[in-house]
Amino acid sequence: MDRSAEFRKWKAQCLSKADLSRKGSVDEDVVELVQFLNTRDQFFTTSSCAGRILLLDGGINGFEVQKQNCGWLLVTHKPCEKDDVIVALKKANGDATLKFEPFILHVQCQQLQDAQILAVRSTHGLEVPLSHKGKLMVTEEYIDFLLNVANQKMEENKKRIERFYNCLHHALERETMTNLHPKIKEKNNSSYTHKKQRNPEKAHVQCITKENDKELENDDDDLGINITIFPEGY
Amino acid sequence: MDRSAEFRKWKAQCLSKADLSRKGSVDEDVVELVQFLNTRDQFFTTSSCAGRILLLDGGINGFEVQKQNCGWLLVTHKPCEKDDVIVALKKANGDATLKFEPFILHVQCQQLQDAQILAVRSTHGLEVPLSHKGKLMVTEEYIDFLLNVANQKMEENKKRIERFYNCLHHALERETMTNLHPKIKEKNNSSYTHKKQRNPEKAHVQCITKENDKELENDDDDLGINITIFPEGY
Repeated sequence: MDRSAEFRKWKAQCLSKADLSRKGSVDEDVVELVQFLNTRDQFFTTSSCAGRILLLDGGINGFEVQKQNCGWLLVTHKPCEKDDVIVALKKANGDATLKFEPFILHVQCQQLQDAQILAVRSTHGLEVPLSHKGKLMVTEEYIDFLLNVANQKMEENKKRIERFYNCLHHALERETMTNLHPKIKEKNNSSYTHKKQRNPEKAHVQCITKENDKELENDDDDLGINITIFPEGY
Repeated sequence: MDRSAEFRKWKAQCLSKADLSRKGSVDEDVVELVQFLNTRDQFFTTSSCAGRILLLDGGINGFEVQKQNCGWLLVTHKPCEKDDVIVALKKANGDATLKFEPFILHVQCQQLQDAQILAVRSTHGLEVPLSHKGKLMVTEEYIDFLLNVANQKMEENKKRIERFYNCLHHALERETMTNLHPKIKEKNNSSYTHKKQRNPEKAHVQCITKENDKELENDDDDLGINITIFPEGY
């Protein structure tokens, strides 16, 4: 079985499986994007989250939260109100942490150069310890302020999903164009993805994540790692 | 010029350049790891951070921090004390945010399958708004508590760097072994990197980041994206 046939078979298997996330369905704000990707032969999505505000009841001390299954006191994909958090915090008996997790998307790609245009991870988050051993460590005024920040991040995150969707459209259109015109393709596909020599597809997606990086001098790529991509048939 | 010669030339160019980070040198805790990677023909590092506690004075409102260059009130790669933060916060006139940023490493790889064993990004962070329009929104007691959490994350982060370094050693040893024994290689390199069929190299690095993901049901890969890796000569 050739590579594309194997990929098609694997894609069909994965997409036919039940959604095993707690929510059990794709988030409303990314349904269109996920469907768009899954209509393309060279891609399929394996998981996604449009962005959410989470209140977790973890172990005592920040890093121990990582070491045990921690309770979900609250989770929402919509703007969140102070009273909801106050009520949920009453159930906390460990170290409760409020998190804003931005849009995330896991995509399988048939060919490696397709991965260039799907390298997206926003650093636009929040992770705020609120209580220690069940005792609230901040004021209600602070929670109000924090949720204002979180809700604004949620709004900004929505805009980024739209921009990513638009950029993806352009990138894939451009890719189709270059496939039709091999000379342009040769020109665009450098054998390495240099930071200052991104090919057009990469450049398109960079526009989404670049603004996150002004405060992160060492995070000037949208993944935590640079991967050298060789053009097809290199 | 063949691919490996081109990579060697590019590596030499990059490693000969001055360190343009604010700090101007590789962080003490990752020097050994960075040097180890740069002695391998198939890799070189382009940037790294061992992990740091940052206090940023951003724009008004959380997401506007992203939209402007924001001032660094404090940055340390060592455990941080409350008084240092209190003093630094006095200089804030916007929305100050305390962040813990874990170990991050940017690596260029000669071949794509090498990227599998270098896919590392910890989600072990903190991002906590502390002041609004220059006004402190939390108590000193909270800052003390928060720094306790941040310093513990710093400690845990150090352990993870060591574990990553050890796992990398094993992965590269194993890779060398499989290169010496093609039959093992065929067995280990599946044509796709399925979540439940990671090859041994991938599995080695997973052990570092997996524990971050218990609270992130949709973040069960160490990158924000899955990339399908084809074995060399597929």
